[in-house]
Amino acid sequence: MKQMVAESVELVVMAYTAAWNESDDATRRRLIELSWCENGVYSDPAARVVGRQALGEHIHAFGMRYPGARLELTSPVSAHHEHLHFTWRTVDSEGCTLREGRDIGQLGSDGRLISVVGFFGL
Amino acid sequence: MKQMVAESVELVVMAYTAAWNESDDATRRRLIELSWCENGVYSDPAARVVGRQALGEHIHAFGMRYPGARLELTSPVSAHHEHLHFTWRTVDSEGCTLREGRDIGQLGSDGRLISVVGFFGL
Repeated sequence: MKQMVAESVELVVMAYTAAWNESDDATRRRLIELSWCENGVYSDPAARVVGRQALGEHIHAFGMRYPGARLELTSPVSAHHEHLHFTWRTVDSEGCTLREGRDIGQLGSDGRLISVVGFFGL
Repeated sequence: MKQMVAESVELVVMAYTAAWNESDDATRRRLIELSWCENGVYSDPAARVVGRQALGEHIHAFGMRYPGARLELTSPVSAHHEHLHFTWRTVDSEGCTLREGRDIGQLGSDGRLISVVGFFGL
């Protein structure tokens, strides 16, 4: 059971991070729908967006600003209670690191992300 | 203004971590009162406690289990919106590291901690 829970947390994080790397609007929307609560809140030092649609637009704007950039996990996903943590980096189209940081997520009762708080720098 | 906000966040974190290092019950209670919301929630991989009194008892139990142990910050306090992050280690009475980890805090509207989520390992 514990293993299943850990795997479902990891699946949600994989879908969430895949959304950041998806250029097709419909596929990105679906990935967000699968991993993100309707009113989930994303915040980092530079942004705060509420809800699936706003998150999709925020990710789209990232893709417009850094064409070809990708988000990569740089740690396993640690989780306890309804909380999770992982580190990441964004790389440009040539694989150079743009930024490193960490995300702390909180899962809602349906197992999807109700909150992600990002910090820049490791 | 921004500087004042950063300093008040740091003061709250200092009072919170000082509570972990305080053996006098009344002083520890006061430090928790200054830094922690009445119904604040503390959780880490091994525990979840709700409210000032339960937090005080949890810290007291830590002190009983590891006499002379101390909690030390090992990073600056990063903060944005109502969120903050710092890393820490606990050391035993001889200064040997017992555990390292990170805490992610959320501030309530009165500027005190409404939630601290800890993760073990860096």
